[in-house]
Amino acid sequence: MIKTSKSAWIWFPGDREIWLGNLFNNRRTERGAMFPPFWKQDSHWQTVEFSKQFTLSKPETIRIFAEGAYNFMLDGKLQFGEPKSFIIPEGLHKINIKVHNLSAPPSLLIESEREGSPLETNDTWLVTCEDKIWIDENGQAHGSGIYLQPGCWPGCNQPEVLPSKFSLLETEPRQAVRRSLIDGNARQLLFDFGQETMGYLVLHNAQGSIHIYYGESEAEALDKDHCETLDHLDLYMREKQYVLKDSKAFRFVRVEGEVENVSMLYEYLPHDTSRSGRFECSDPLVNKIWKVGAYTMDLTTREFMMDGIKRDRWTWSGDAIQSYLMNYYLRFDSEAVKRTIRQLRGKDPVTSHINTILDYTFYWFNSLGDYYRFTGDVAFIREMYPRMKTQMDYTLSRLSSEGLAMGQPDDWIFVDWVDFPMHKRGILCFEQILLAKSLETMQLCATLAGDKKRNYGKMATELRKKIDQIFWDASVHAYLHALEPELNRQVTKFPNMFSIFYGYASDERCQEILQHVMLNPEVPAINTPYMRFYELAALGQMGLQEKVLHEIKDYWGGMLLEGATSFWEKYNPNENDNRSDSQIPSSPRAPHLEMYGRPYGKSLCHAWGASPVFLLGRYFLGVRPLQPGYGGADSRQKDIAWEARPCLGGLEWMRGDVPTPYGKIHIEVDAYTLTVSTPQGIGRGIIYYNNVQTEVKPGQTLTLQL
Amino acid sequence: MIKTSKSAWIWFPGDREIWLGNLFNNRRTERGAMFPPFWKQDSHWQTVEFSKQFTLSKPETIRIFAEGAYNFMLDGKLQFGEPKSFIIPEGLHKINIKVHNLSAPPSLLIESEREGSPLETNDTWLVTCEDKIWIDENGQAHGSGIYLQPGCWPGCNQPEVLPSKFSLLETEPRQAVRRSLIDGNARQLLFDFGQETMGYLVLHNAQGSIHIYYGESEAEALDKDHCETLDHLDLYMREKQYVLKDSKAFRFVRVEGEVENVSMLYEYLPHDTSRSGRFECSDPLVNKIWKVGAYTMDLTTREFMMDGIKRDRWTWSGDAIQSYLMNYYLRFDSEAVKRTIRQLRGKDPVTSHINTILDYTFYWFNSLGDYYRFTGDVAFIREMYPRMKTQMDYTLSRLSSEGLAMGQPDDWIFVDWVDFPMHKRGILCFEQILLAKSLETMQLCATLAGDKKRNYGKMATELRKKIDQIFWDASVHAYLHALEPELNRQVTKFPNMFSIFYGYASDERCQEILQHVMLNPEVPAINTPYMRFYELAALGQMGLQEKVLHEIKDYWGGMLLEGATSFWEKYNPNENDNRSDSQIPSSPRAPHLEMYGRPYGKSLCHAWGASPVFLLGRYFLGVRPLQPGYGGADSRQKDIAWEARPCLGGLEWMRGDVPTPYGKIHIEVDAYTLTVSTPQGIGRGIIYYNNVQTEVKPGQTLTLQL
Repeated sequence: MIKTSKSAWIWFPGDREIWLGNLFNNRRTERGAMFPPFWKQDSHWQTVEFSKQFTLSKPETIRIFAEGAYNFMLDGKLQFGEPKSFIIPEGLHKINIKVHNLSAPPSLLIESEREGSPLETNDTWLVTCEDKIWIDENGQAHGSGIYLQPGCWPGCNQPEVLPSKFSLLETEPRQAVRRSLIDGNARQLLFDFGQETMGYLVLHNAQGSIHIYYGESEAEALDKDHCETLDHLDLYMREKQYVLKDSKAFRFVRVEGEVENVSMLYEYLPHDTSRSGRFECSDPLVNKIWKVGAYTMDLTTREFMMDGIKRDRWTWSGDAIQSYLMNYYLRFDSEAVKRTIRQLRGKDPVTSHINTILDYTFYWFNSLGDYYRFTGDVAFIREMYPRMKTQMDYTLSRLSSEGLAMGQPDDWIFVDWVDFPMHKRGILCFEQILLAKSLETMQLCATLAGDKKRNYGKMATELRKKIDQIFWDASVHAYLHALEPELNRQVTKFPNMFSIFYGYASDERCQEILQHVMLNPEVPAINTPYMRFYELAALGQMGLQEKVLHEIKDYWGGMLLEGATSFWEKYNPNENDNRSDSQIPSSPRAPHLEMYGRPYGKSLCHAWGASPVFLLGRYFLGVRPLQPGYGGADSRQKDIAWEARPCLGGLEWMRGDVPTPYGKIHIEVDAYTLTVSTPQGIGRGIIYYNNVQTEVKPGQTLTLQL
Repeated sequence: MIKTSKSAWIWFPGDREIWLGNLFNNRRTERGAMFPPFWKQDSHWQTVEFSKQFTLSKPETIRIFAEGAYNFMLDGKLQFGEPKSFIIPEGLHKINIKVHNLSAPPSLLIESEREGSPLETNDTWLVTCEDKIWIDENGQAHGSGIYLQPGCWPGCNQPEVLPSKFSLLETEPRQAVRRSLIDGNARQLLFDFGQETMGYLVLHNAQGSIHIYYGESEAEALDKDHCETLDHLDLYMREKQYVLKDSKAFRFVRVEGEVENVSMLYEYLPHDTSRSGRFECSDPLVNKIWKVGAYTMDLTTREFMMDGIKRDRWTWSGDAIQSYLMNYYLRFDSEAVKRTIRQLRGKDPVTSHINTILDYTFYWFNSLGDYYRFTGDVAFIREMYPRMKTQMDYTLSRLSSEGLAMGQPDDWIFVDWVDFPMHKRGILCFEQILLAKSLETMQLCATLAGDKKRNYGKMATELRKKIDQIFWDASVHAYLHALEPELNRQVTKFPNMFSIFYGYASDERCQEILQHVMLNPEVPAINTPYMRFYELAALGQMGLQEKVLHEIKDYWGGMLLEGATSFWEKYNPNENDNRSDSQIPSSPRAPHLEMYGRPYGKSLCHAWGASPVFLLGRYFLGVRPLQPGYGGADSRQKDIAWEARPCLGGLEWMRGDVPTPYGKIHIEVDAYTLTVSTPQGIGRGIIYYNNVQTEVKPGQTLTLQL
């Protein structure tokens, strides 16, 4: 009876992410013990009402599917029970359906016998809940009776698969590349899967007590007493194929007990590789770094964009904003970005900063500005704006009396893991710069959401003046560290590189900062890929591609020489001088595995480790949007919508793709030729190369002889 | 290995009630369609940490049970997995256990091999959650890292019964008293269970399509098109005994289809009848009224105290405060009171009044004052005080500029269902009186909770002055209705009877109100048992027991004459003049069944219908506490702890029991003798009778010859 329809499961927007985020963040274990996050975990609304008004030219039969108990109201009249199907008469009608579910977000899917029917559930429906959603600064409650566009996910549209059972991930079998006995004991096996991986271990022909020790390194898997993750099983019957319940991150696995063989189900978020970014060049080491970076991103981009796959397996806003930026140059998976942004924010009331960290709230705001610039997706900004506003209300309510951001007793000030003395007390210049950018993002989004009452832009301008007055010291050519309340005159790269990255410093001041801070060996080095992201981005922005390339090869190349098959949470090249010269590195050595006072505490597959993926696309292929979504959202757009400033930075040649919402921009450069191909759908671009600027149209291939 | 222990399941305080309350309030159906409440439904905290510090003189083996995933930390060290048992070494130790559960409140039970071990879970443990629990008026967040006494329920202590599967209710089989064919058709049966009841219908030897129509009256069960609740089933196989999934309220059931017989499982909250209140007197009608009232209370007192068993089956604060007061004279089930108070309040943030109704917020505050007076349970006041404070913050933030309570656009002003014209706009005198009493309750509870910063008492005094200045009109000897903003000079019983009930009017003014309002036939009559509760309480307080008795016999006796087997939501004696003179009433007649524009909309078993249970205990047996919990909580108490002012009010004799937390006070009175027996454990009482006052000690039987 029912034809194939294009109906989707719909729910209260953001509730699916909050619910799945709780499952996701609670999967972390530490030596077999559950390790839940230490911040607020919100819940979905338990009762939700979906509605639609529509006109039918003839009667139509619909089928109703819900996750939860539901009722069905036609034109204000409740119908009996939970009707599975219904004949809607012709004419103008209104349907209201309430769904209640304690354990998973109430969800609805309606199929019609007529394809394209207005009754098919999608984002043209409306949704509301009985709860008040937020309270504004005047104590006014909003939400109850406010109708919103429902949430839905691409692919989550099969009536027989309830949304709570829908998986975003897929699996495929993988074999170990090497298997060895430990101490010659056939009941103690070590498996090497050849590279960092994540998924479900599979035991073949196993029986009895089985002990499993996972390692991102060989040393970790062999060290039963200190490896970070492990499993103990008791299999009462012989199991032909026993698949472990929880996924784990590892390269090596030590298995003790009666087991014939061990394989795994690699678990991953599928991507359309034909739409993905790519980078290739004349330097094999750089190619290898890009590939390992891309693999690191693929491992950490899952239901949400997580920090590291061994630990924490949580969403962290500071990590995530870098994943988003890398993603715009790799998979352009906007759905994963939206899911993570929604999940990180959670619900009102705001009772702490995102992840409890002041800087992470700022990164959260700014990730929405980035998202809009790369995708042009105004609908998502409008969806999130109310929660941006209450998050900003909370932030502003905790400023110092001078209107400056400072840590309150229950805030965590992160900045970075540093190996040198640095106070994080008082008013940090770094946090003010992030706040200024957040206020600018708020002004952009207020405008997009049609909120004309806000003056975030004015606040940002005033704050930027204060930053210059308080923190800029012309005598040392740098932004100083902090007011505690005395001026702490320490110079670090953090505020200085952000002032370049955000375009807050004039050209002249940028040059001062470059010479006196960024390239000054007396200013302490950054030893996390996390902050090296912004450091090298600032250099790239100033045209120092040769320096950036050297740093990429040295720092990320250094990790590869230490045996990395994915990039790490932290790396200090000076921690180990005995670099291997083997071309096939086996496994990282011990000094690089410690962190948090634990021998294998460091995460060897950490999203923020993958920044070359961003740096090579952004500063070598040189592509970036100038208009939201590369100008594709607005066909009347007359301005130049994007630019490419290819820069070899010492490479002989390079070629690659940068994804946009409408297809890939392809760029090839060598000493003689520059070729740029553009997809249909984006706006006009401009190519800067060798002091020449050339315009390029959508769907064009442009070849310049140099 | 493990001896019987006295461990209980423990959880975050209030979370069990919030979770169960959502299940409870979502069971309402209207003609087979789910009918969820239209206010905020909160969720339990998903991750909770239980902890205890203790000293053992020798090692002890414990067994750990949890509802949810958990981890186990001994002395700061996480242990592997989810240990089911553990040997705790001797000495000083600390245990921290985190439990995570999305679908039901995370709960913990620990048994020890040693009875009386400090490791047995009970209210000596501590509990916290990672979420911020509330935000005070300065924007300061509280909660995370604040350790509370956990919640637990008597009887919920079996390791093998998870708290989410624990039922507070029991069932027993009941047979219909009459069975008849409809239109002589053997496939259309009408069953009469003899009185209003609630439970699960049982079909015997049924098969095929079965249609069930429930009726609180015979007319309702017979009216397939308009009865309020119904069920349709398709039984593919013959079922020897098919028990319906959802409980329903009914006296009559019409069953259509192939069914041999129908019985039911009566579902009820068990009570210790040996500790219950009782009332018996020379007037059989009054005895019948008391019994039907008590039965009405027993039907509506379930997991929570609900309004009516057919509909709404919800918790409503205005209904509940009367249930609590009746309960103190009937079952003294403090657990049911606490459950309902916790459930009604829910969680922060406060985004609406309780049940969205301004007056219902005030009743909620005052129910805590009543609870303390009758039980003396300070611990519960301390548990609830933070949520009282945020509820009062919300209430105060919505007062008029003159500090008076008024309805905001999203508030519902209820007062009562009235059959005469009455505006509910502007500033109602009635609401100010409830607010004043609420502020007095807040002052009491602030003192009990050790909050010395509040000046609720001063606010109450000032408000009471304003009420007198604005609303008291000496010329009509009454409190006037409202400021809209012009003075609305309408006189209703509502503010006037509350000024007597709360002791706000002087003796002289009480007399004025009595003559000019309460006994004035020109002032519109009250036609709900809901407000007749306060009307008759005010008369009882002024010593008009003969009048009260007459009204009880007339009004509640009137319902009995109309066929009531439990008391109703609303009753206007003038709606039907043809009273039956049959001594065995069969079923209410149609004019009394309508409400809300629906032929059977009225609830015929409504908790607020049962007020004679309160009135007879409070104003005829005449017992009330003067010190919290009848003085039993504080053994050093020197003041008189309770009083009895027995008053026959025209009866020849009466005898009865009034429960206290420590046993029953028994009172018997006839023309010649007054006997009072008191239990051990309460404080000293004083008996007022025939202008004589006599002191009575705990555990004493006092007989006075009159």
